[in-house]
Amino acid sequence: MPDAPTVSAADGQLLREIEVLDESGARRALQIPVERPLTISINGRELVTLMTLGARSELLVLGYLRNQRIIDSVKDIKSIRIDWATGSAAVSLRPTANEIKADARHQVGTACGLGTVFGDLMMRVDAAPLPSAGTARLSSAALLRILEIMREYDAIHRAAGSVHGCALFHGADLLASIEDVSRHNGVDIITGWMLLHGVAGADKTLFTTGRLTGEMVMKAAHNGVSIMVSRNGVTSMGYDLGVKLGMTLFGRAAKSRYLCYTGAERFDRESDISG
Amino acid sequence: MPDAPTVSAADGQLLREIEVLDESGARRALQIPVERPLTISINGRELVTLMTLGARSELLVLGYLRNQRIIDSVKDIKSIRIDWATGSAAVSLRPTANEIKADARHQVGTACGLGTVFGDLMMRVDAAPLPSAGTARLSSAALLRILEIMREYDAIHRAAGSVHGCALFHGADLLASIEDVSRHNGVDIITGWMLLHGVAGADKTLFTTGRLTGEMVMKAAHNGVSIMVSRNGVTSMGYDLGVKLGMTLFGRAAKSRYLCYTGAERFDRESDISG
Repeated sequence: MPDAPTVSAADGQLLREIEVLDESGARRALQIPVERPLTISINGRELVTLMTLGARSELLVLGYLRNQRIIDSVKDIKSIRIDWATGSAAVSLRPTANEIKADARHQVGTACGLGTVFGDLMMRVDAAPLPSAGTARLSSAALLRILEIMREYDAIHRAAGSVHGCALFHGADLLASIEDVSRHNGVDIITGWMLLHGVAGADKTLFTTGRLTGEMVMKAAHNGVSIMVSRNGVTSMGYDLGVKLGMTLFGRAAKSRYLCYTGAERFDRESDISG
Repeated sequence: MPDAPTVSAADGQLLREIEVLDESGARRALQIPVERPLTISINGRELVTLMTLGARSELLVLGYLRNQRIIDSVKDIKSIRIDWATGSAAVSLRPTANEIKADARHQVGTACGLGTVFGDLMMRVDAAPLPSAGTARLSSAALLRILEIMREYDAIHRAAGSVHGCALFHGADLLASIEDVSRHNGVDIITGWMLLHGVAGADKTLFTTGRLTGEMVMKAAHNGVSIMVSRNGVTSMGYDLGVKLGMTLFGRAAKSRYLCYTGAERFDRESDISG
């Protein structure tokens, strides 16, 4: 594939042990997640500094650039090189992508909010091409299986806490899973994975341990994913975007419990969920 | 007080009711927190868009500007006017503050990360003036009382979830408390309250339901607060900053349990914590 970008594979240490005192005054060893700054530069020009656990950072960079509308496709990228010694991600863009990039810095600068070009996102809501309810469906059995699988896939959270998990499913099949210090990083890494592997979002379900805020729902929609499942809740903007875009949002989803906030028409409830 | 800024007092609706389906297929009414974009402009120039619940947004703007090093003092501000009809916060700066502001836009643009000028923060670590362990102390009785009080002060979280709480204490006395959709907003609002009321951080304790990441710890330190208590955990950068700055960090603090990550020399443990 001539258009595949060159991507380094730098993974740092993800956990560290510290000594703490508990409430009884006893010393204990405790694992904590590593958090490190990663400064993204595009063609030598500094764009943004993200705080990250450092796992799959090349995918984080790729997904961040797409979710910020700085690139459209993996073809815009020539290479991404992470260097943890300097905390830098050097992105080299192909010349063809230059017109998109020209105002990239401006966009991030004017409305980065909590890491997202939000004003822009709202304006592009109508442009997001989401699959019909016929294409993207989820059964209650698949949903329960997703919750079961995700209980097994939170290794860092169980060891150290303070991270969010994010995963992509096709039905109840786990395609990709990641933990990071921010729920935004999680979705960005899954986005990067989809982009690098050419995986479309149409018939997929995105799981997150984080809240379904407006920015999170928008990131899923931007990648064609119409079904989201959160272990957490929803905000009014996440809900409104979900309704407006015709998405299906589940929240408070853990063990055998969940709420369907909107889009129940994509959801196939079996009469016997234990079957 | 001639230097007091003019600040509007706009509070929007904080909760909304939606109808959801639960796992048994039953319809239920559910409260969700409102999340809305607030675009901050300085002297007519757009700076950033924050997502917020909308409670005490004038304090959010004030604290955000201070924690981003765009202002040093409330004296830099002439007025802050929030208009929810347009989602705008118009900040007017006094002429004396102009040199700080000149590069404000640049700073946010180059390293906004998750809303914070992180590179800059790291460089200024040594500049943060924190009180000695003699000035800032916390007893185990006060800590347990703080945890008890905070269980009562999470009205929105209990009604709707998906928000973070933040509060400032003097000993076990609650001075200010807020909930918002982001843990960063919470600290920024408390910062704004301290700034507007001229309250110093030296002998205070900052409580947050959020994680003690590097950015959170830095925001406390920047406001002279050396004791933090989190219902959640710590990341490596939050821990390293706490150690480097000589702060006292407690985490996993709920009911009668807590961990002291660093700075136990400020902590007075009573032999009988039930007394």
